[in-house]
Amino acid sequence: MERPSVNLKRIKTDIEKLAEFNATPGEGVTRLTYSKEDREARNYLIDQMKKLNMEVEIDGIGNIVGKLEGNNSKKASIMTGSHIDTVKHGGKYDGVVGVVGALETVRVIKENNISHNHPIEIVIFVEEEGATFGSTLIGSKVFSGAYTLKDIKNHRNSDGYSMYEKAKEFGLNPDSIDDKENKDIKAIIELHIEQSIVLEENNLHIGIVNDIAGIKWYEIKLEGEANHAGATPMNLRKDVMVKSAEFIKYIETVVKQSKSDSIVGTVGKINCKPNVPNVIPGEINFTLDIRDVNKKSLEETAQKIEDKIAKDCLESNINHEINLMGEASPIKLSNNIKEIAINKVKSRDYKYKVMNSGAVHDVGVLAKNTDSALLFVPSVAGKSHCPEELTPYEDIERGCNLLLDIVIDLAQ
Amino acid sequence: MERPSVNLKRIKTDIEKLAEFNATPGEGVTRLTYSKEDREARNYLIDQMKKLNMEVEIDGIGNIVGKLEGNNSKKASIMTGSHIDTVKHGGKYDGVVGVVGALETVRVIKENNISHNHPIEIVIFVEEEGATFGSTLIGSKVFSGAYTLKDIKNHRNSDGYSMYEKAKEFGLNPDSIDDKENKDIKAIIELHIEQSIVLEENNLHIGIVNDIAGIKWYEIKLEGEANHAGATPMNLRKDVMVKSAEFIKYIETVVKQSKSDSIVGTVGKINCKPNVPNVIPGEINFTLDIRDVNKKSLEETAQKIEDKIAKDCLESNINHEINLMGEASPIKLSNNIKEIAINKVKSRDYKYKVMNSGAVHDVGVLAKNTDSALLFVPSVAGKSHCPEELTPYEDIERGCNLLLDIVIDLAQ
Repeated sequence: MERPSVNLKRIKTDIEKLAEFNATPGEGVTRLTYSKEDREARNYLIDQMKKLNMEVEIDGIGNIVGKLEGNNSKKASIMTGSHIDTVKHGGKYDGVVGVVGALETVRVIKENNISHNHPIEIVIFVEEEGATFGSTLIGSKVFSGAYTLKDIKNHRNSDGYSMYEKAKEFGLNPDSIDDKENKDIKAIIELHIEQSIVLEENNLHIGIVNDIAGIKWYEIKLEGEANHAGATPMNLRKDVMVKSAEFIKYIETVVKQSKSDSIVGTVGKINCKPNVPNVIPGEINFTLDIRDVNKKSLEETAQKIEDKIAKDCLESNINHEINLMGEASPIKLSNNIKEIAINKVKSRDYKYKVMNSGAVHDVGVLAKNTDSALLFVPSVAGKSHCPEELTPYEDIERGCNLLLDIVIDLAQ
Repeated sequence: MERPSVNLKRIKTDIEKLAEFNATPGEGVTRLTYSKEDREARNYLIDQMKKLNMEVEIDGIGNIVGKLEGNNSKKASIMTGSHIDTVKHGGKYDGVVGVVGALETVRVIKENNISHNHPIEIVIFVEEEGATFGSTLIGSKVFSGAYTLKDIKNHRNSDGYSMYEKAKEFGLNPDSIDDKENKDIKAIIELHIEQSIVLEENNLHIGIVNDIAGIKWYEIKLEGEANHAGATPMNLRKDVMVKSAEFIKYIETVVKQSKSDSIVGTVGKINCKPNVPNVIPGEINFTLDIRDVNKKSLEETAQKIEDKIAKDCLESNINHEINLMGEASPIKLSNNIKEIAINKVKSRDYKYKVMNSGAVHDVGVLAKNTDSALLFVPSVAGKSHCPEELTPYEDIERGCNLLLDIVIDLAQ
């Protein structure tokens, strides 16, 4: 039998159709968890799965799983999927590419009558972006058992309603989530847009992910002395704007000098008080987001930055606080699936790179207990979470073909 | 005759009384232009001047002038005063010290029957702080003719009402301001708190001001590329937060390296977009306030900063805008009055310093046409425009004695 491939026309239809379930037409795609648009998109996808005779189950928080039985119903499932929720004014491709790729994979397997022992499951995780309930990856965390009923009751939207309450209102049964049995999954593969410019810059088609970076996220506060910008000589200032500038530059320098070439450090947020042109700032708050797949270099670099801030503030008589707001360890993805992916990508003659992911993804949550894999397709200019988000269809086609090849292999 | 001196008890009474006309008791002093508290303070001061048989005139915008005739009514006046408006939650001393010092000067001259040929005038300028109508020194600018009716109609409060409208509502006749004749003033002297820590750091009692610094005020905008903080490698970033940090540090460095020891440069305001911890900033706006009494060094240093920003942004492919929002030339105060002040301060045995003012003051506005002088008394810890603003009464007493001595000398 000739090697089967995906049908780009169907993929296009799915992606364009899903983009219509959008609360902000003309201003990017906005499809928030449990919204009207979310329900429409879910119904469309459930309908597509049912047309393929898949058995569809929805858990208490709204994760959707469609199952295509294999020859041996006792075998563990091969799972693939992603998410369909978006940020506000996001793009058409983030999450959707992986869901549509999963759907197309099952279609091709069905229409070619490809025999497989393992069941194949499509998964659509809810609230990956955290745009509604303030925290990312909630669906996959509930799915994996990392989050319980208590967490769902604690995560609230901007109106103060919990995800638990909103799930009930949406017609789900969130009380059931602590009772569910763990599913028997052999492997999970997620196809996703890269959301960066590494593939594009290197003219590559596919990224095969080794590790997902660990993260440390800080809030740093410096307190100096607000004073008159005209009347206070330079040598009598306690200027936390200048001090913050030194630290922000230091962060970039120490991260770039690290032996690890996968480490990144970002100051994404800064607030100044009183924030008036003619007053020397009395207080600056800024964030630090530092990530690496190498736990040792992450820890060491974070420590260097903490030490530098503490030492310089002491010397300059500046009060400071360094608050670690959150952290997560790096995640190792499946070596086995990576090797399969490399074989498949070579046989398709696609240009690829084994790389790391600086962003978190649902498969990372499952990686502790399940062989997990993450595949990237390029993002034009690295843009994501914005209306300009774009992955050309020929790249999506390649990603879906690779996903198809891997699922067929694993499901044998 | 023994040398007359001020009566500290009366000065204290005036200062404490004025502090009662306050919209925010317990949270600093708030006395905004044309407010109820402003009217009460104005009435108190007008009352005090009338008790001294002074002739009180109020111009169309609310500047108050009280006149004590001299032996020769054809001579030009010696004027002294300051302002009584405050910022929100300001202090008890900013402006008030100069007004109370002027009042006490006239009291001492009257009670000691000190003969003087020149009339002596007390002036209280409105809206010096700009806390209500968004621009400083409005009263003195109208007084000097630098501002006309048109300007008063253009300056608006946060509710959108013009100073013209509010002046009318307050019972003034702003339509008259373009018609007034220029007053014949021989000299004007303003006693003011320093609002910085130079006098305190050097254990001095009095500052005699040579020059008021010129200023250039900029808004600077950098546009990079907002991208995912985890997914974007360090070498592929266009991070305007890091670039801004470099410029802020450069500004401090180049200002400190200037041959001029009077130059100061301040970045007091910064705003970041989207200002989210896990997104590399796509846009940063920050201000630059640069001042010096030396026009050449001010211009040269400002040019260096402009050039550096333009050059680095070009090299880094970052869009930038450098907008000069306002500027004023340095102001030379009266050498003649300075020499008189130095003689008087020496004969009082006060510790003094001839210094510059980084802050603007009403006398600076009049300096073009009139011999103008500015005297400073210390600010504890340099604090001003805040509830903690403090000048010890013994320092205020010294300042008022010096003012008295100078006015008596000039009025002969």
